[in-house]
Amino acid sequence: MKTIKDNIKEIEMDQAFHQAIYGIEKEGLRVLNSGELSLAKHPSELGNRSFHPYIQTDFSETQLELITPPLHSIYETNRWLKGIHDVTLRTIPKDEFIWPMSMPVPLPEESIIPIADLDNQDAVAYRNHLAAKYGKNKQMLSGIHYNFELDKEMMRQLYLNQKDYTNLVQFQSFVYLKLARNFLRYRWILTYLLGAAPVVDSSFFKNKKCEMTLPEKYIRSIRCSHFGYANSEDVSISFESVEKYVENLETAVNEGKLSEEKEFYSGVRLRGTKKAREMLEQGISYVELRIFDLNPFSAFGIAEEDMQFIHLFCMLMIYKEESATMAEVEKGKEMSDLVALEYPFDTTHYHQEGIELINQMIKMIQETNGSRDQIDCVQQAKDKLEKPEMTLAARMIKGIEESGDYVSFGMKLAKKYKEESLEKPYIVRGFENMELSTQLLIFDAIKKGITVEILDETEQFLKLSYKNQIEYVKNANMTSKDQYIAPLIMENKTVTKKILASKGFNVPAGEEYHDKSEAEKNYWLYKNKGIVIKPKSTNYGVGISIFKEGANFDAYQSALDFAFKEDSTILVEEFIEGTEYRFFVLDGKVAAILLRTPANVIGDGKQTIKELVSEKNKDPLRGTNHRAPFEEIQLDEIEQLMLKEQGYTTESIPKKDNQVFLRENSNMSTGGDSTDVTDSIDESYKKAAVEMTGIIGARVCGVDLIIPDYNHISTKENPGYTALEANFNPAMHMHAYVSKGEGRPLAMGILKMLFPEII
Amino acid sequence: MKTIKDNIKEIEMDQAFHQAIYGIEKEGLRVLNSGELSLAKHPSELGNRSFHPYIQTDFSETQLELITPPLHSIYETNRWLKGIHDVTLRTIPKDEFIWPMSMPVPLPEESIIPIADLDNQDAVAYRNHLAAKYGKNKQMLSGIHYNFELDKEMMRQLYLNQKDYTNLVQFQSFVYLKLARNFLRYRWILTYLLGAAPVVDSSFFKNKKCEMTLPEKYIRSIRCSHFGYANSEDVSISFESVEKYVENLETAVNEGKLSEEKEFYSGVRLRGTKKAREMLEQGISYVELRIFDLNPFSAFGIAEEDMQFIHLFCMLMIYKEESATMAEVEKGKEMSDLVALEYPFDTTHYHQEGIELINQMIKMIQETNGSRDQIDCVQQAKDKLEKPEMTLAARMIKGIEESGDYVSFGMKLAKKYKEESLEKPYIVRGFENMELSTQLLIFDAIKKGITVEILDETEQFLKLSYKNQIEYVKNANMTSKDQYIAPLIMENKTVTKKILASKGFNVPAGEEYHDKSEAEKNYWLYKNKGIVIKPKSTNYGVGISIFKEGANFDAYQSALDFAFKEDSTILVEEFIEGTEYRFFVLDGKVAAILLRTPANVIGDGKQTIKELVSEKNKDPLRGTNHRAPFEEIQLDEIEQLMLKEQGYTTESIPKKDNQVFLRENSNMSTGGDSTDVTDSIDESYKKAAVEMTGIIGARVCGVDLIIPDYNHISTKENPGYTALEANFNPAMHMHAYVSKGEGRPLAMGILKMLFPEII
Repeated sequence: MKTIKDNIKEIEMDQAFHQAIYGIEKEGLRVLNSGELSLAKHPSELGNRSFHPYIQTDFSETQLELITPPLHSIYETNRWLKGIHDVTLRTIPKDEFIWPMSMPVPLPEESIIPIADLDNQDAVAYRNHLAAKYGKNKQMLSGIHYNFELDKEMMRQLYLNQKDYTNLVQFQSFVYLKLARNFLRYRWILTYLLGAAPVVDSSFFKNKKCEMTLPEKYIRSIRCSHFGYANSEDVSISFESVEKYVENLETAVNEGKLSEEKEFYSGVRLRGTKKAREMLEQGISYVELRIFDLNPFSAFGIAEEDMQFIHLFCMLMIYKEESATMAEVEKGKEMSDLVALEYPFDTTHYHQEGIELINQMIKMIQETNGSRDQIDCVQQAKDKLEKPEMTLAARMIKGIEESGDYVSFGMKLAKKYKEESLEKPYIVRGFENMELSTQLLIFDAIKKGITVEILDETEQFLKLSYKNQIEYVKNANMTSKDQYIAPLIMENKTVTKKILASKGFNVPAGEEYHDKSEAEKNYWLYKNKGIVIKPKSTNYGVGISIFKEGANFDAYQSALDFAFKEDSTILVEEFIEGTEYRFFVLDGKVAAILLRTPANVIGDGKQTIKELVSEKNKDPLRGTNHRAPFEEIQLDEIEQLMLKEQGYTTESIPKKDNQVFLRENSNMSTGGDSTDVTDSIDESYKKAAVEMTGIIGARVCGVDLIIPDYNHISTKENPGYTALEANFNPAMHMHAYVSKGEGRPLAMGILKMLFPEII
Repeated sequence: MKTIKDNIKEIEMDQAFHQAIYGIEKEGLRVLNSGELSLAKHPSELGNRSFHPYIQTDFSETQLELITPPLHSIYETNRWLKGIHDVTLRTIPKDEFIWPMSMPVPLPEESIIPIADLDNQDAVAYRNHLAAKYGKNKQMLSGIHYNFELDKEMMRQLYLNQKDYTNLVQFQSFVYLKLARNFLRYRWILTYLLGAAPVVDSSFFKNKKCEMTLPEKYIRSIRCSHFGYANSEDVSISFESVEKYVENLETAVNEGKLSEEKEFYSGVRLRGTKKAREMLEQGISYVELRIFDLNPFSAFGIAEEDMQFIHLFCMLMIYKEESATMAEVEKGKEMSDLVALEYPFDTTHYHQEGIELINQMIKMIQETNGSRDQIDCVQQAKDKLEKPEMTLAARMIKGIEESGDYVSFGMKLAKKYKEESLEKPYIVRGFENMELSTQLLIFDAIKKGITVEILDETEQFLKLSYKNQIEYVKNANMTSKDQYIAPLIMENKTVTKKILASKGFNVPAGEEYHDKSEAEKNYWLYKNKGIVIKPKSTNYGVGISIFKEGANFDAYQSALDFAFKEDSTILVEEFIEGTEYRFFVLDGKVAAILLRTPANVIGDGKQTIKELVSEKNKDPLRGTNHRAPFEEIQLDEIEQLMLKEQGYTTESIPKKDNQVFLRENSNMSTGGDSTDVTDSIDESYKKAAVEMTGIIGARVCGVDLIIPDYNHISTKENPGYTALEANFNPAMHMHAYVSKGEGRPLAMGILKMLFPEII
């Protein structure tokens, strides 16, 4: 029989062998500031648990289950774990935290522990059954389930390159069963390294159905020992073949030893079908590894290096020549229990076998052209075999002793993790490299249980699914709900103006010119007016001349030349006096109005401008490169020139309450401030902005209006505004975080436009 | 009282004074090859005359009235006149022509001349009244109406800079009445220069109500003389004031001298309101100048230089110090009649006044900073005063004598004009600088009476209006009917593939990579397959490597480097064998399928490749720079290399029927051929293309499928195609004109999608 190792080598599948699909399910209790279990309902803002793909409840109403989608890399899996945590941590009540350990906080009377209040009454009944059979306390243990699938194409190619199995399903079952048995045989090393449940409040075992006494004050993992939850002794399921696995499982259910197949609390479950029986035909698609305690040193329950080690361990379980028998599996269970019960600072009983396993892993990595990182990862595990104080359990004990007790220690970590999540509320960790507006959308989508798939990360292209509906979104608000022609209209300033003017909206008077002589001929139109001369297509201030008081013919000509240098088409427009506001129109309503102010500091009579700028830049809402809602104020040439014109240098000390501007332009990208004025501006302007958007045919639009006095009521005959432009794909994040006034979160509005059903 | 001249000078309105809005209405008989009047119905393809903005019928069913929209320049007006002519000439039956002269062809019995068959029964009744009163023959005279409006802003500024009139409406009436009276006083010079109705078939005057004898065999203009149509002598309308004009007109109607106000056949009509009376309040907006004969030497009835001369003449009529009295207007009428009746080769009776007028025009042009062109235009008129043989009437006589009679001469011109229009059926003259697909759309829109406004010419941005509906169109098929997200999906090849694949459509297997090492790790996926390695974003063949038989690792690595040089993201895709077809999907149906073939020539055993290419390039459907449906075949480096690889040079003589390819790629832009295969390809592929378009959410889409055998029926399980890409804004012109098979005009389909009501 050809070994998998030889098969991989023969057809050069080494790189393929390193690939996998991962999925993490992470349980975690909601706890209060006091270290008590929260008894509050699952937050309604998190949508409906019945089909929420990311945020569910496990046994208890206050036991969160966070779920990552199946992903092709550990990096991806980790980012989703981060993102889902951010959504959860920012949505649960202010005084709630996610308990970072597998062993629960001291629990209240069993009767008070709330069972998850699910729509599905069968699921509730199942939980009641578990409570009755194992006691609620045991069900409050939390852990990580690690789902692991090998590359399908590799599986197919390995299958084709062997003769022992005559169909792919059988071959696949052979591989996964080998993995399962070997995993169960050698799982003790994972218990040693990752076991992280050394202690629990004594009340835990005093509750009925759990009455036991631990052998030591601290062990490696209560949860992974026979004190954790396990099926009764009479449940015995074979991993020898799929047939036996299915048969044993069905018998256990039929005999009432298990209420349902999913009550089988094994370290490994074979997965891929709804019912085990279906596996006989369809085969095993992946395995679910269920032995992992929460790593309290990771904010997300499992560290990236732990995920990598588990992956390499699984690879070895497949790669190994020998395949454990069921007797060895049984032995493995005992070995793991023994390790779980060891005192964490002791060298493990199976140290020698551990070193061998590590050496085998290193050899496998070398033989399959693995990476330096992988070697390092395994090497660290080896170090931990030598130094038990480096294991999770031992490190926890140090922390617990320092803090006084495990609850204080756990709460310290829980609070830290929540604080870290709240520090930059405008980003979704894991997705920081995407645009802020897209992060806002991802956040709200995850929150409401809309399935998010990133189709193209650099292009900000998302696929959103909810129930049976699919919507594609680019850059957070480019969707199927807008007409194709609308952004094309907005992109073209002349066309926008013509269309708005044709419907009686007030736009700056002006014309487009393709050659200078044409523009010269029309000088008479402008000679006594304030005008702006600018290239048609650029938007960044290049080639623009502004004559607030009008231009003489010479100046006019020079300005034409200046603009024509930048573009073959230029615009000559009336200069409009007044303040510019951005109206964010969403689906027929003005969802937000923003006033942007140029970069500035306000004097305190003591600090220099340089110091004031530096202080202002410390705000966590300020950053660089569009990674934060506000950009840091610079002190470059332009700013210094602007200061000079006002008689300042960067070392000047402005008087108390004096506002000093460092820029002329009010763009957020050059350090500007913002004020939300949504509720201040007269309705007549909102009506005009909505009507303009309608004329253009847009549902999402940023309308820039100049309004000298927003209390004056605007009418068709006497409009109080001039419309400067309409912007497609308007920025959303700048409305969500403002310097003054109320932030307007717009992403949920976009989601509601796409999926009117969401609540 | 301040003169207009002084007013213009004082406030430097000279350039504004040169500006105007123009509109041309041009009548013309439909005639047969034989030179007889066509008796056929107005073509139903031209939509509904009840509201057609461009193509109407005048008195007779076979008397076309072509109308330009109001436009700001002579250049614009002329292009519309050309375009409307192209649409008309290509839509009327094959054996019909547009008679190029004001005087009709020999007419049939009056009873046979068909009156326009309009929906509006009042309009039919009015025409019956005219027939009874003036005889049908007189109504068959055709001419040009020239509508002329001064710049409104200039009018406002001139008004503000004077004290004689206390409201703008009165001032405006003063200006237009001055223009009208002076125009009527000096119109004779236009009769002299532009009179073009020297002769008519003798039967014309033998008909009842027209019995007259001309003083000479040839005169300058029968139509402009008292032999043309004129109101009865007792209709006398004053141009002294708006009040008198209105009063006289209403009296004439009340006394039955005119059946309606519009029966007033004056050389000038005051315009701007539906009923004359409304002008008392609203004022005169523009004037309609009605004296112009068709210029048979222009394919469009009036030459651009004639339009310019008329404009300058009108300017002078306003600019002149003196303002004609009504007595002078009466004199002017007699003078014009006299000139109309002169023998065209004679010096005109009013030669001296003519020279003075011309000198005044030159002076005016100089004083108002006019152009060299304008001086030249006026100078030519001066030459014609000296040399009567240069006038239109005289030139016509020469032509008539050469051809034998005026009908032969007119038919020769009519045929020439139609031929010119048909020579390049893929362009709309006047709009040649726009994209071919946009020209196709403009053509069909004009044809169906959809109002076309060019919002941005270089950007191919159109506004289309039909009844109360407005639609904006960019690049011929980017419209409000497509979703914004659809083109964004198509623009991103990876996203398109992911979406299509997720719905079970067959796309080339492959992955996107952001760095080389990632791609190297996946080499195992490709090593035994044909693959294509290419940069993600470029589409022009740069950085692409094709390994039809698979690549070894070294070649694979080099190809990765090659692609990464062009883009930070690259694609490695399965190479698909087979022929590529473009499916044009429009509104849920496959409207056309095209097979594109690389540039090639077919040998005749005699000519060299160079000669064959040159011959092939003579096809009027071939051109350069995308100005024709096919591009000329080049003989540059790439083509020569391609020939060399086949053992040819440009001087080789291929055997008869040997097809020699000059390019590997089948793009139309490099001289490729095309074959329409819409009807050949199995329905199952069309269904797949339509379904893919639906998944993307597009209504207009160019789907590129590779199909090895298009007779094989494609199924979900066993698809006969691989979808390469979906294209937004797919080219339409390449389907309309094909090398082989049936052309598929798609523009009408776009219009029907936009305006389902059109017929």
